[in-house]
Amino acid sequence: MIGGELTYSRIVEAKERMAPPVRVTGMLPLARTADEVGRERLFLKSEHLQVTGSYKARSAFNILRSFEGERRRRGIVLSSSGNFAQAFAYAGRVLDSPVAIVMPEYTAEVKVEGTREYGAEVVLCPTFADRDPAVEQVGAERGMVILHTFEDPEVAVGHGTIGLEVVEQLPEVETVLIPVSSGGLAAGIALAVKERRPDVTVLGVQPEGGNAAYVSWQAGEVRAVDRWESMADALSARRPGKLPFEYLQRYLDDIVLVSEEAIAEAVRTILFRTKTLTEPGGATAAAAFLSGVVDTGKVTAAIASGGNIQPSVLEKILGGE
Amino acid sequence: MIGGELTYSRIVEAKERMAPPVRVTGMLPLARTADEVGRERLFLKSEHLQVTGSYKARSAFNILRSFEGERRRRGIVLSSSGNFAQAFAYAGRVLDSPVAIVMPEYTAEVKVEGTREYGAEVVLCPTFADRDPAVEQVGAERGMVILHTFEDPEVAVGHGTIGLEVVEQLPEVETVLIPVSSGGLAAGIALAVKERRPDVTVLGVQPEGGNAAYVSWQAGEVRAVDRWESMADALSARRPGKLPFEYLQRYLDDIVLVSEEAIAEAVRTILFRTKTLTEPGGATAAAAFLSGVVDTGKVTAAIASGGNIQPSVLEKILGGE
Repeated sequence: MIGGELTYSRIVEAKERMAPPVRVTGMLPLARTADEVGRERLFLKSEHLQVTGSYKARSAFNILRSFEGERRRRGIVLSSSGNFAQAFAYAGRVLDSPVAIVMPEYTAEVKVEGTREYGAEVVLCPTFADRDPAVEQVGAERGMVILHTFEDPEVAVGHGTIGLEVVEQLPEVETVLIPVSSGGLAAGIALAVKERRPDVTVLGVQPEGGNAAYVSWQAGEVRAVDRWESMADALSARRPGKLPFEYLQRYLDDIVLVSEEAIAEAVRTILFRTKTLTEPGGATAAAAFLSGVVDTGKVTAAIASGGNIQPSVLEKILGGE
Repeated sequence: MIGGELTYSRIVEAKERMAPPVRVTGMLPLARTADEVGRERLFLKSEHLQVTGSYKARSAFNILRSFEGERRRRGIVLSSSGNFAQAFAYAGRVLDSPVAIVMPEYTAEVKVEGTREYGAEVVLCPTFADRDPAVEQVGAERGMVILHTFEDPEVAVGHGTIGLEVVEQLPEVETVLIPVSSGGLAAGIALAVKERRPDVTVLGVQPEGGNAAYVSWQAGEVRAVDRWESMADALSARRPGKLPFEYLQRYLDDIVLVSEEAIAEAVRTILFRTKTLTEPGGATAAAAFLSGVVDTGKVTAAIASGGNIQPSVLEKILGGE
């Protein structure tokens, strides 16, 4: 636990500390047809073009940069088989701090190798359920900081910097769409946007087949779901984190759902119209606009959260057109 | 013919006139592996992220902005079934100047419709050989300016602005790679780069199966080729233009060739590593670096000239992996 608090002023501080290789990503206008070029109402906050291919580089660098002396020398341990693994692995290499990533043994070789290539140590554990104990054990043995990415406020602080950039880069924004998994990204961004611009509508977006935060939102408390079926593997949380969920309740206007077909169509539309590649989870927010689930008359910023798609998944999505 | 001269000072003037919606595109670092992130030597000049999806928006806007009064009111006619059609169609709409694009009747419907969606009139002619007479006829009948894109110096002037940006954005550049078709892009960029930085090596790149400029370069004079077979449809010139070829002879250090396999591999590498989409012609310059045809020890800028790829072509390229 790194701790700290999730507040507007801490997000502002994190933004002031932000520096290369973390990028201030652009707002990419998305025209649905050639006729719409120059008259766009949908803009992608392009975290798929962030270093390491996802927004997670923001909190990885924010956290590791805050470590000094012995802490920096001993490093950090967390569990992830996705974008967090790559982001921390790269931040550790750049900032010369050890990073250990716990993954189940059956994790796809490409993810294990990708994480190692970025420069982290991969610690394999037998099953999904063994991940948290393995993280605790490695942390205790090596004196590494233990990061529980669902619950640590510091994670959402780093990601909240995206919200500050959106309202600065697109002052005419009326709606912000954020993909939701455990809720850390949405908590940070919603807090930042609403504190700066209470007039802006902020919506969470989830796949119909991966709707734990939506179910929890409807119930008014954190609920876990048994069923999870979506191509948006970056949004795979079976329940929202407790801490971020409190912020979702306070700052989101609503959570909406999109179909798998709408996500696939959004990946294709973004690819051929903006010439940029999103992973399914990265296209999920835009899918809510493109499929008409939200008011398309509003100037809308959709967080394109990542672009780390498996080639085989992209092939399938293109073939499905 | 618009005329004018292709000189360094006219490129500088064009750069000073450049304004939105034409974009100053970024230099995108391309790491071949995760291990290379942050230590890249190859940078893409990202004209695939230019408005309308290719660098041709630069000369389209540069030319139409130079038109005043009656000229602007009557507009321009040219033949193109590719990126020039979309660029001029869009520039005409934004600048409120009529644009007529001549295309053979058998042109793919998607290109005809794309051009119309951007806002231009499409004039169909029976065959490829009828294009130039049709352009002359439309121009004469309607008092439109007639643009022969291969030979007009003004085309290369607009495109030369890319060369100025490359040496400003990447001062450590040692090699510049430019895709070559009729030669206008390479002429403008090579002139701009060499006048500013004579120490930089400037190389043209062509597909092995579409090598008219290479053959001409070897012969020391403009030669046409009978055979043209490449997936890089944006580089389809059967001969270089006479005017640009003079500049290639003066300013290029060499022209190198890349295989179809290297082009396809470059499209894939660019897509999955930078999360951006190039068309085959847009990946051709980078392919020379990625396949090791040029010295990969040098800090290299490759012009990624466009991203307007047909979905079916992309599917084929991905499937070929």
